[in-house]
Formats: sequence, structure tokens, C-alpha cells
Amino acid sequence: MKDYKKSIQDYINNNKDKTIKLLERLVKEDSISGNESKAQAIVVEKLRELDLDLDIWEPAIEELKDHPYFISARENFNGSPNIVATLKGTSGGKSMILNGHIDVVPEGNIQQWTYPPYGAIVKDNKLYGRGATDMKGGNVALILAIEAIKQSGITLKGDVHFQSVIEEESGGAGTLAAILRGYKADGVIIPEPTNMKFFIKQQGSMWFRLKVKGKVAHGGTRYEGVSAIEKSLLVIQQIQKLEQLRNDRIDDPLYDGVPIPIPINIGTINGGTWPSSVSDLVTLEGRYGVAPNEKMEDAKKEFERWIENLGNLDEWFLDHPVEVEWFGARWVPGSVEADNELVKTLLHNYHHITEQKPIIEAAPWGTDGGLFTQVLDIPMIVFGPGETKVAHYPDEFIDLDQMFLAAEIIACTLIDWCKVQEQHEGEGVYENEKVL
Amino acid sequence: MKDYKKSIQDYINNNKDKTIKLLERLVKEDSISGNESKAQAIVVEKLRELDLDLDIWEPAIEELKDHPYFISARENFNGSPNIVATLKGTSGGKSMILNGHIDVVPEGNIQQWTYPPYGAIVKDNKLYGRGATDMKGGNVALILAIEAIKQSGITLKGDVHFQSVIEEESGGAGTLAAILRGYKADGVIIPEPTNMKFFIKQQGSMWFRLKVKGKVAHGGTRYEGVSAIEKSLLVIQQIQKLEQLRNDRIDDPLYDGVPIPIPINIGTINGGTWPSSVSDLVTLEGRYGVAPNEKMEDAKKEFERWIENLGNLDEWFLDHPVEVEWFGARWVPGSVEADNELVKTLLHNYHHITEQKPIIEAAPWGTDGGLFTQVLDIPMIVFGPGETKVAHYPDEFIDLDQMFLAAEIIACTLIDWCKVQEQHEGEGVYENEKVL
Repeated sequence: MKDYKKSIQDYINNNKDKTIKLLERLVKEDSISGNESKAQAIVVEKLRELDLDLDIWEPAIEELKDHPYFISARENFNGSPNIVATLKGTSGGKSMILNGHIDVVPEGNIQQWTYPPYGAIVKDNKLYGRGATDMKGGNVALILAIEAIKQSGITLKGDVHFQSVIEEESGGAGTLAAILRGYKADGVIIPEPTNMKFFIKQQGSMWFRLKVKGKVAHGGTRYEGVSAIEKSLLVIQQIQKLEQLRNDRIDDPLYDGVPIPIPINIGTINGGTWPSSVSDLVTLEGRYGVAPNEKMEDAKKEFERWIENLGNLDEWFLDHPVEVEWFGARWVPGSVEADNELVKTLLHNYHHITEQKPIIEAAPWGTDGGLFTQVLDIPMIVFGPGETKVAHYPDEFIDLDQMFLAAEIIACTLIDWCKVQEQHEGEGVYENEKVL
Repeated sequence: MKDYKKSIQDYINNNKDKTIKLLERLVKEDSISGNESKAQAIVVEKLRELDLDLDIWEPAIEELKDHPYFISARENFNGSPNIVATLKGTSGGKSMILNGHIDVVPEGNIQQWTYPPYGAIVKDNKLYGRGATDMKGGNVALILAIEAIKQSGITLKGDVHFQSVIEEESGGAGTLAAILRGYKADGVIIPEPTNMKFFIKQQGSMWFRLKVKGKVAHGGTRYEGVSAIEKSLLVIQQIQKLEQLRNDRIDDPLYDGVPIPIPINIGTINGGTWPSSVSDLVTLEGRYGVAPNEKMEDAKKEFERWIENLGNLDEWFLDHPVEVEWFGARWVPGSVEADNELVKTLLHNYHHITEQKPIIEAAPWGTDGGLFTQVLDIPMIVFGPGETKVAHYPDEFIDLDQMFLAAEIIACTLIDWCKVQEQHEGEGVYENEKVL
């Protein structure tokens, strides 16, 4: 048996500049939601070079909209193609989906960037730009993994589907579309930025909007009104209690040392129109963390019940209930057992290549991975280059060495998972045919 | 002695339609800050008919800006004239300032109005429109009072200065300008809408803006950040305690039955930019009530000290102190003793005309009156037609009967206060001159 893994390593080492160029081209495209096509075109060009089977389509909202996990603020996905590229196996091995999203969040306040957000500047072996770590660096690691296998002349038995999807940042419509199109496999790797740690569980989340009512009055006689701002204090305190209760329930040792495994974050508050008027409306928006093994629907109901209970604390809420709306983004939770074959294979290769002890954690954020576990019930693991803490922030960057290392680990995992079609096996068949 | 007061009553009764027309014309002009000139032109036209001495000028901001009580968001008052019309007395009587503001607050959401805000529709003896009650109705009552005196052939001994000022709704720059121009008198009546009650004390107020700091983080790891929204809860609770303390101090029986004599109203709250981020900034804006006998500067310092003390409750505030800014509008408090001659004269006429017991209260809001008591130290009383509760709201209206009643009471008060130059006194002089 040839040392395939050595070939992989050599290929990656010999093709770093070319790979960085690919990442540069991708980061230079501001592929925010609705604007993914140019970045996807670069992906397609690369995948064609590798001679993979390509499936390129714009998801049809009609086919998605009734799915319980569908969420999107868009009316259609015209001009926003999904891509699935398949490296067909010879059969007899396990299949794998390698999933990455092409969409990025907006650059935010340009003044806060030292490097231009779409400049793809390389400095000290880091590439800077929006999406570098979340997650174009991860996508390039996936492409490089497949490229290294293919160009090293390795033939796999199991199929590998590389998915370059849209809409992850807005709730996963791109991955859901790929699932509903029929793509499935024996395992899924998503190289979101875990800083090379292994996230075997992931928090789900959904966004809520609360409308807290008051009664307007002049500030000088504020006792004639009811302040929605004061009532919001009770609402916030109620949510804090719910967060406590929900987190007290979590006994998974994976969460030891995590102060709040599934936080409820109240991210925005807005109310009142005039300093000297009593405000009659406060709007709170936030993110509601969902436990890896929890049903979205159950989590939602618990929250709604808790808000309803405000009436027991303050009669005002009986006649003026707080309105709860679920809006915007939503990510379903996901989990895989630590002794799952997928996890073990990936960890083995990590350890073999890095000679370091792998770190296993629970993800504090959701990915499209939850869709694979909840809709298809297939094992999924999140493992990738780059640090979460720079994602969505100014001067986002990716460590290029991590990207190459991730590509190597993933390529070697594919070799173990999908199995290699050995040359002599092929010859054997040929010999048998000759015999017949 | 002629029955002057009967003449006043007759004049008013016989000139109601004409007076309503004047109010209609005034309400039809949307004299919001910066747009007062057309309404003032109507006032001038009327005052010229009455042959009063007119002083019309645009206040010069350079002459006001260093005054401790000056406040305005405007860069200049070009196109926004102040008017003072003087009914010169023959001397020997006390003088009076009758002060009313011509500016109105914006109409707000037009959808919430049943009547067009600048339509001046009369229905069931009420006139509807922005500024009807606050306080064009009061202004018309003042003009009618002077008109009734003049047209009834009554000559007063003391001077009467009618002031139609700008900028009351933004902190009193118009009245301050009239004071600094040299106008003073032995008493001041301001017919802001008290619903015919007598406000002998008035709360002052100023606006504050607080900036509460936090530290940004992803909502899924919110424990890595510091929520400015959570910290705002402490700030709001601290302000609630300060309000309690300040109100516990007030022992004036005039405030018996008023739940919160000098409220601190937090009117707006705005913070955070994204549901799943920890917010690093919350801005609170509010109105800080100042007791009638309190110095603005002392009140301000107490508030600032209280906010500084947050550091004792939560160390976060030691390194991230809440910023306090005083901005926007400010009204100085004011008070007059219940046994002051001005109060007694006005009450006497109210009782004589209405045969009802006058109601004396403390105003829950500031007026320009505080400037007269604090800058000039002259007695001032707020008494006028219309209800506060419709001021600044959709479908603001004035009860026209109240307006006429107020005009009569004020005219009769002028007769007592300024004293009438009796015909025979004049004749006496004439006779004496003949003798000489």
C-alpha cells in the first residue's frame, strides 16, 4: 500500500501559493446574501479544473418554504446559486459531505478596519478580509483536500460531495435546499472556524422580538402613564431567570467550564420617542440558545410560556401581554456522539499529523450542521481553521498554516473514511476478467 | 365708578365670533420652532388694530448665549420674531406682563388625528388643532382681555405688556430675550393650559442623556462580553432610588396627593445593533424634575453624584463610568406665595365671576414663568384655559367657553391690579389745569 497520506502532505506543501491565490480571489468578492454569484463562479471554475461532477442550481423558494426548518428573509434566490461537486467513488466505501457556506456577513463600519475588508491582504502568514475565517478559508481547505486526493492519483471508493452553499448566515436555506435535492452521505464535516478544535455538539439558536407595552403620559406626571421601559426591566429579569433554569438543566460534561452553555442574549433594546414622555412601547430583540438535544419547538414553547407567566408577577401584563415574535435567523442544534466512527477517524488523523491531543468542545453557536443531524440524522462534526472571535468583526483573518493543516487532516480522513481503491484491486478485477 | 367689569363681560360676550376667527387663523399656522413668523404676523395685525405700542425683534443669539438660563438647539432666530405690545398706563398703578408662547410642538403622526392638525375645526364649542390649548387659546384670551379693556374705553394706570414669544417648547429663549431686552413688571400671568386652576408653583426640568457602556461579544458566548443592556438595569434602578429620595424630601402640602411631585422620567432607551451580539452601548434619555425652590445647578450635581455612585454598586462602572450629558430643553422652576397680592387678586376675580372655589396646585411641568421668578424675582402665576392632557397629543383642542372666561378673569384682574384711571380723575386734572 502506497503512503497516500505522505502524497497528500507533499501535494499540499507544493501548492500553497496557488491555494492562497484562490482564497484571495474568493475574499475579494463581497458575497453577502444576494451577492454570492461571483464568488460561486470562482468556485465553479476551480471545480471544473478538478473535473468533478457539478450540480449548480438556484434554490426554488416554493420547494423550501413549507419545510419546518426553512427560514429566510428573501423572496427568492435568483442569482444566488448553490453548488454541489461530486468526486464519484468506485463504490464500497463510506460517503462524505464536505459543507461550507459562501455567504459572508456585511463588513460593518469600514472605519474600524485596518485592512480593506475585501482587500485579501496577506501579512505574517495571515490573510485578512471579511469571510476569510467565516468561512472561505474553510472552503478552500475542503477544495484543497479534494484536489490533493485527485492530483495525487488517489481513487476513493466512497463518494465525496463538496457543497458550496448560500444563506448560512441567514439561517441555512442553502444547505436545506441541498438536503431536499437529495444529497446525503454517511458523514458530514463542516470546517467552520473552530480554531482546529472538534465541536461535536452545537447549540441551536433562534431570534426573538418582544414588544413590551406601556401607556403614554407627560414626563412631569409620569405616574399617569405606565412606562414600557420600567416594564421591560421585569421582562429582562424574567428572561434572566429562564436562562438560569435552562442552563441548570445541562449536565453534559462537555459543558463543564462553560459559564452559560445556552445563553439567552438580549441584543437590542429600543423604546420611547421623547425624553419627557412616558414610553408606551419597548422592543427587545435577542438570540435564544437551544440545547444540542433539544427540539426547536419545545424550546420555543418554553420561552413563550415564560413570557406569558409575567402576568403572575405584574397584573399590567394580563391586559397588556408582551408580544413574542420569532424572526430573522434560526439555526437548529446538532450533536454526534464522541465515540462515533466519524469523530474517531477525524481525531485519529489530527493526532497523527499534529502529534497533539485533540480538544473536543460543544459549539457555542449554530451552523448548518444541525440540519444534517435533525433532517437526515447523519453524523456531523464541525472542525476547521480560523478563530470564531474574529468572525463577523473588523480585520477578520485566517491563519494560512491552519488552513493547510485542516486540508491535510480532512484529506487523510477521507482516505480512511471513503477508503482507497487500491491499484491492485483494480488489477485484480482486470485479471479476473481476463480469466473469464 | 362705572361697572367696568360688566363692560368687560359685555364686550367679550358680544365679540365671540370675531375672537374665534382670530384663534382659527392662528391655529392654521403651523408655528413650530423656526416657523413662527406667519402666526406672529397675525398677532401683529391684531395688535396694530388695538393701537398698542409694538416692539418686534428677532432675538440675537450672541446676546443670549452666555446667560446661564439660555438653551436652544438653534444657531440663530432669523425669521422668528418676538413681539411685545404695550398698553401704556397713565401711571400710578402696578404693571403686568401677560406672557404666551406662539410656538407649538410638531403634530406627530398625522394618522392619529381625527381632525386635521392645522384645520382649526370647531365642533361642540371646541376648537381642534395643534397649539389650540398649548397655547394659542391662552394667547387669544390675553389679547381679548386687552381688547375688551381698550374697546370698553377703560384707561389703566399701570402698564400692560403683552408678550408673544418664540421658543417656549425648546427651553424659553424667547422669554429670556424679552427679559434681557428690559421688560419687567410687578406681576406676570401666563395662561398655559391649567384647566382654569391656579399653579403657584411649578416644577423645573432638564433633559439628560446617559451613555451606558458594555463590551461586545457574540450572543452564543455572551459571558465573554458585558451587556450594556444589563448594566442599564442597574442605572435605571439607581435613578428610581434617586427619584424616591428627592420626592421624600418634598413636604409642601400643595403636593399632597401628587404621587411623584418631581418625577425623573426615562423617556427613551436605545442600545445594541444585532440580536445575537452583546450590546456595548445603551443610551438613555430623560427628563429630570426640579423642585420649585431648588437651584438647577444643585439638582444637576445631585444627579451626577448619584450616577457616579454606581461604581460602589458594580465595579464595572469604575472603569466604564456612565456618561452624563445635559442636552435639549430646560425649564427653570418657579414659585409664588399663595398670599401674594397677584395670586389673591386673580383668585378674587375667579371666584367673583365663576362663583366657584378656585383650585390651587403646583404645576407638574415647567413654563417660561420660572425665568420671571428666577431672573427678575417678580411674582408669576400660571392660569389658563385648556387641559394639559391634550397638549402635545393628537386632536388637541381648546374649550372656547374656558377661553372667554379666562379672558374675562384676566381683564378684571388687570382692572384691579393696574387700577383704572377714572374719568373724574382726568376731569379733575383738567379742572385743576383750568384753575391754574
